[in-house]
Amino acid sequence: MSTAHVPAARTAGAPQAPAPELPPDRAVLPAVIGTAVQRVDAVEKVTGRAAYAADVRLPRMLHGAVVRSPHAHARIVSVDTSLAERLPGVHAVVTGADTARIKWGAFRPDLYPLALEKVRYVGDEIAAVAAVDVETARRAAELVRVEYEVLPAVLSLDEALAEGAPLVHDDAAGNLAHEFSFDRGGADAWFDRSDVIVEGVWQSTRQWHSSIETIGCTAEWSQDRVTLWVNTQTPFLARQRYATALGMPLRAVRVVQTEVGGGFGGKSGDDNTSVICAILARKAGRPVQLVNTREEEFLASRPRIPMRYHVRLGFTSDGLVTAKDIDMIADNGAYTGKAQAVLGAATVRHDALFNYRAVRARSRLVYTNLVPTGAFRGFGNPSADWAVGQAWDLAATRLGIEPPDLFLLNAVEAGSVSPHNHRIGSCELKQCIRRAAKAIGWYEKRAAPTPNRGLAMGVSVHVSGRRSFGDYDGSSAMVRLAEDGRAVVIVGEGEIGTGARTTLAQIAAAELGLPVADITVTRPDTDLTTHALGALASRVTYVAGNAVKRAAEHACEQLLAAAARQLDRPASELWVEDGVVHAPPAAGDDTPVQVPVGVVVRAELYRPDGQPIVGMGAFDNPSEFPDQSRFGNESGAYNFVAEAAEVEVDPATGAVTVLELAAAVDCGTVLNPPLAQGQVEGAIAQGLGMAITERFAWADGAPTRPSFTDYKLPTAGVMPKLHVEFADSYEPTGPYGAKGVGEIALDPVPSIVASAVADAVGVRVHELPITAEKIYWGIHDPDGRAREEGESR
Amino acid sequence: MSTAHVPAARTAGAPQAPAPELPPDRAVLPAVIGTAVQRVDAVEKVTGRAAYAADVRLPRMLHGAVVRSPHAHARIVSVDTSLAERLPGVHAVVTGADTARIKWGAFRPDLYPLALEKVRYVGDEIAAVAAVDVETARRAAELVRVEYEVLPAVLSLDEALAEGAPLVHDDAAGNLAHEFSFDRGGADAWFDRSDVIVEGVWQSTRQWHSSIETIGCTAEWSQDRVTLWVNTQTPFLARQRYATALGMPLRAVRVVQTEVGGGFGGKSGDDNTSVICAILARKAGRPVQLVNTREEEFLASRPRIPMRYHVRLGFTSDGLVTAKDIDMIADNGAYTGKAQAVLGAATVRHDALFNYRAVRARSRLVYTNLVPTGAFRGFGNPSADWAVGQAWDLAATRLGIEPPDLFLLNAVEAGSVSPHNHRIGSCELKQCIRRAAKAIGWYEKRAAPTPNRGLAMGVSVHVSGRRSFGDYDGSSAMVRLAEDGRAVVIVGEGEIGTGARTTLAQIAAAELGLPVADITVTRPDTDLTTHALGALASRVTYVAGNAVKRAAEHACEQLLAAAARQLDRPASELWVEDGVVHAPPAAGDDTPVQVPVGVVVRAELYRPDGQPIVGMGAFDNPSEFPDQSRFGNESGAYNFVAEAAEVEVDPATGAVTVLELAAAVDCGTVLNPPLAQGQVEGAIAQGLGMAITERFAWADGAPTRPSFTDYKLPTAGVMPKLHVEFADSYEPTGPYGAKGVGEIALDPVPSIVASAVADAVGVRVHELPITAEKIYWGIHDPDGRAREEGESR
Repeated sequence: MSTAHVPAARTAGAPQAPAPELPPDRAVLPAVIGTAVQRVDAVEKVTGRAAYAADVRLPRMLHGAVVRSPHAHARIVSVDTSLAERLPGVHAVVTGADTARIKWGAFRPDLYPLALEKVRYVGDEIAAVAAVDVETARRAAELVRVEYEVLPAVLSLDEALAEGAPLVHDDAAGNLAHEFSFDRGGADAWFDRSDVIVEGVWQSTRQWHSSIETIGCTAEWSQDRVTLWVNTQTPFLARQRYATALGMPLRAVRVVQTEVGGGFGGKSGDDNTSVICAILARKAGRPVQLVNTREEEFLASRPRIPMRYHVRLGFTSDGLVTAKDIDMIADNGAYTGKAQAVLGAATVRHDALFNYRAVRARSRLVYTNLVPTGAFRGFGNPSADWAVGQAWDLAATRLGIEPPDLFLLNAVEAGSVSPHNHRIGSCELKQCIRRAAKAIGWYEKRAAPTPNRGLAMGVSVHVSGRRSFGDYDGSSAMVRLAEDGRAVVIVGEGEIGTGARTTLAQIAAAELGLPVADITVTRPDTDLTTHALGALASRVTYVAGNAVKRAAEHACEQLLAAAARQLDRPASELWVEDGVVHAPPAAGDDTPVQVPVGVVVRAELYRPDGQPIVGMGAFDNPSEFPDQSRFGNESGAYNFVAEAAEVEVDPATGAVTVLELAAAVDCGTVLNPPLAQGQVEGAIAQGLGMAITERFAWADGAPTRPSFTDYKLPTAGVMPKLHVEFADSYEPTGPYGAKGVGEIALDPVPSIVASAVADAVGVRVHELPITAEKIYWGIHDPDGRAREEGESR
Repeated sequence: MSTAHVPAARTAGAPQAPAPELPPDRAVLPAVIGTAVQRVDAVEKVTGRAAYAADVRLPRMLHGAVVRSPHAHARIVSVDTSLAERLPGVHAVVTGADTARIKWGAFRPDLYPLALEKVRYVGDEIAAVAAVDVETARRAAELVRVEYEVLPAVLSLDEALAEGAPLVHDDAAGNLAHEFSFDRGGADAWFDRSDVIVEGVWQSTRQWHSSIETIGCTAEWSQDRVTLWVNTQTPFLARQRYATALGMPLRAVRVVQTEVGGGFGGKSGDDNTSVICAILARKAGRPVQLVNTREEEFLASRPRIPMRYHVRLGFTSDGLVTAKDIDMIADNGAYTGKAQAVLGAATVRHDALFNYRAVRARSRLVYTNLVPTGAFRGFGNPSADWAVGQAWDLAATRLGIEPPDLFLLNAVEAGSVSPHNHRIGSCELKQCIRRAAKAIGWYEKRAAPTPNRGLAMGVSVHVSGRRSFGDYDGSSAMVRLAEDGRAVVIVGEGEIGTGARTTLAQIAAAELGLPVADITVTRPDTDLTTHALGALASRVTYVAGNAVKRAAEHACEQLLAAAARQLDRPASELWVEDGVVHAPPAAGDDTPVQVPVGVVVRAELYRPDGQPIVGMGAFDNPSEFPDQSRFGNESGAYNFVAEAAEVEVDPATGAVTVLELAAAVDCGTVLNPPLAQGQVEGAIAQGLGMAITERFAWADGAPTRPSFTDYKLPTAGVMPKLHVEFADSYEPTGPYGAKGVGEIALDPVPSIVASAVADAVGVRVHELPITAEKIYWGIHDPDGRAREEGESR
């Protein structure tokens, strides 16, 4: 691999022009690309200096606590704050009366900052207190007296959809928050022409992000503006919603991202925490910090949406897929947030995996009196891939084709176009299938089967950014090259723990020819940095990476032009490497020219009419804004995964052990192997939690004990032997060939665990998680408690 | 006055092109220019939220204290830190052995971060301690045992220049730190042709900046980089020197400006505080904060340079000035800092006031074993204007011409060129002289004189930026227009209390058509903001103002182009006012088009290939880098002042009361009247301190009681009735016609007080301050203690 920097000025056009389609020749990639560069925040994090939401300290700062509904559905008769207000140390108590009484929400405004008239789930915010310390605030919160008139509640999808069910919101008839449907390609006709049809119902459940850091905010007002230090994934998008919720213009709200201790979709600004914090700080006239307890995080954050899929798949007898039909209902909980968008993705995304002739869907988002649900790593795909994956696994069994072979027969490839106009660019899905099969030893294990062990494979597709908040999924950046030889990348995307700032620093370093240690990537601040959608939809590497690359190219052009003038050499002869501008020896000399970048920058500045070197770059995802029926190429680049698992089931107890799991990921060029590996491994762990361990016992609309004691995250003991591989892949529109990688490896996990259990002991579980109890009854009472739903003709 | 914004796109060229020479027609100035806009930091400051150096709080932060020399000159025999190290709570003790043993300094590197071998003034830093709190650190500092061998010291200019004097630095023969001389125009020949020659010796003394906030720093290391939060006036220049002092590359030091509680030249990074703080933090492995006590500020900051001028002036009998000759020696103290540059300004600057035919000078900067001296508001001019002003006042008396008339006869005007090639652009010096005379009631008072009252006038010239740290005196800025309708100005100049961020916000607001409240101006951070020389030489309004104006113009062009596309109207029809893009009604319609700026910005972003709006602008002072003999047009714009004073002297005690003081200032367009007024009033107060109240009793090279008890700042009781006027003036190269205003009003004050005292009671004081004692003896023992040194032929 070449260690020299290929100057941007030689390979790139103007910074705003479309990215050049570099050939997938690894030799042209700068050395820093594909290298295990140390995280730029490594030292800060391991030394404890990184400042998370609760580490913000402002003079005179108060602490907040929230009063929450103990009822799933009730009318608020009265709220008496007088006792709380009299507690020494309390500076403000706020209720709905202190708010602008405006409903807000990312897509469907249905949430008040503090409940007015009604509460709609156990955890709904009614009042809040700011006091000199957390303990006082919590004591005061307990002193707020709320009188309720309890109302009948709908605590499941079935109850919500039942005839005459109580309404969660009066303006949502039938408790429907959103619905849409399509029939593309004529599903009925293709089912008629099918030789094999499989069918079943599969249900996923709530899963909590369980980030090690809970949601938190610190708010401070200055005249009529509020600054919010928030551990949000999406500072700019969150600000927009907070401004709406506060009844204030956008300009009156500034959001600054703190360190974020895990996001996974749960910190994307759909909950009330920051809004309440701002209202408390306004009334108290002092800064206020409000950080969720772990219990509150379970009660009132926005967990994964439970979805129930009725799936039907058709095939020809030789295994070609014909049609797919799904009827899906999703549990919105009491308020909508991003669930509406998740519904869309969970309905169409997986159709970009196989060459379906026709797809039909009906999807409904259903209000219940349960905790509102929302975005979670995978954005609906883990539920979709589980349900549809089960149907594919059934089909493989019915067709007598090994799943890897069935997938290979039907998989999309570069140039494929899905029924929803997903236009597949780079695609190594088939390579991934082959590599996952090989890594798990599929055919060897099939040749020598072990009792009670089962094998399964699943595949998934994800986006690299997704056009969903308007007809834009772009990013922009400024790159200032400084006279100390360092560069600052001013970009608003942020860091939620994935290493995004490191990856962006690598891209800038590669483009500028600087060491990564000499790059600073700013943290998002809506006042300061360029607008960015933030960390969602696996978009940062692809979208922001391209923007940063262009800005760095633009800066590098200026650098080389300056050096050319200073050295009196054509820019085309110059290149930058390790922070030094190089030129071959001048004629009649044999000493190569080497000038440190900082020296060139300083000389460009310190002269009459001196100029700074600042590059600008912007990139918009080359995608389409999908229409109401979700037709449209939602991303410019799709990433793929194939995962295979081997499990062992103890038939005496139903206990399942995942022995090995192989993941082969197509995320284009891997910019930083340990970071990518970390994303894949973490996603698999989170997938195993969803598949096997994570659930609560519920009563009256609330988890009976909302803590990690009852809600079991997958620990090291649950983790199988892992084989993680990255496909040989190059995405022409990506920065140095890269695509997104943050979510995809989670998606197939529930499906492969379920399929492997079915392969091992013939029991197919239809509702997550896949517990020993369900497997046990499936083995020991197959007719009563477990049911094989596949049918064929 | 028009309230509409004249769009930059109509009146300006490309952002990097020379500024257009707008006609001095006030009607074209945007309404926000010349308006009493509230300071952007007003609320932060009055509510106590503004964070000064001592307000920085970092986790695990320690506090520092410094061990200083009690001797003016001594050899360090030994330093024993063991007792200090053993004090509980102490985390680090550092001495010269912990430093890189590198001498540093802005112009002449002669200062170690911590003394090695020798100490050279009372206050010289020898060691420092970091401990859990300030009290422990100070106790530990007292436990550091230093054994000295006291050496003979030079404690005055005369002692330093005496034959065989001890040397302060072995490599500075004759204790000369710097000297230069010139004879331009042939002074001897012009003196030969003169009818009247006046001559005298005048001496100024140390004056301390006495900023309400002392010098302070907080240092934190992360691996091999240190971040310094400093209340510095010049973050970028200071960083360069700190890096040198630490023996580290520039890239290893990041400087972030805190709020600055007064600068006046004293916080421009020539002292050791930040360097010691960094060394302490490195050794302690924890952040350290080091803030001067008031006593330390007197002992070891960098006060005004005492200068002794021998001045000779020649005139024709009708009052035309012919030649000037000065021989000046300046007290450098023990280390050089910026004194070398001050020496230059104090020698040549005032020659841009009058049409001298010839000027000759010899200037010497002399090492003494006293506190090092440096930059102070006026940068040498207050001493020069005092000494030379006294000679002019003598001349007026000898010529029998009233001072205002003598000044008018000889004053420069637009188009004048000084002997040093100062090229005078806009110049309303004569207008200022007339207005100051009128405001003080000069001729009325002359017509009806009052016993023991005296009148005087003085004039001065200052620069608007000064080319002195290399062939560059420019600035650059980025302006991002955001989708909330606000703009951020990313610029590294900073704020030291003068209101610079407010003025820059006004300029951006004017150019963008936004309310000032919608502009954020960044604080300097050497990692983030564009390079800037900072707050020195009255440069920020003129130099940075032009850069910000161009960047805002560039952004406004993009805004109007975007609006033109969105509205399908030519950009030439559009304008921006109060945050709204306006267009006249379309054909066949009578509704004017109005779109908020934020809506346009958002629409420009939220579309396929959406683009952010970011403007770049740079401006370099159109000036020349003076040569070693100070020949060269040091600034692109000169500001002027004329001041007149009436004093009353009590002949029984010598006590002087300044009754009235009139200042007429030519600073071009006044961008913000209260801010400009504040600069003028504050400068006059500081000038009165220098003239009358500020001095110490000294013993053995140190003030006997370094506190405000002995060192008397001028209080409200000292302030005369003030008349502050601004000349009708417009500087074509300035932003909206503006020039600098931060320093000039201080310069003439000592001179006019002295001249008015001479006018009142015939006593001319030759050494500042002008105390009652000196006047008393001048009245009651004129031959013994006070001496009129003028002579003529």
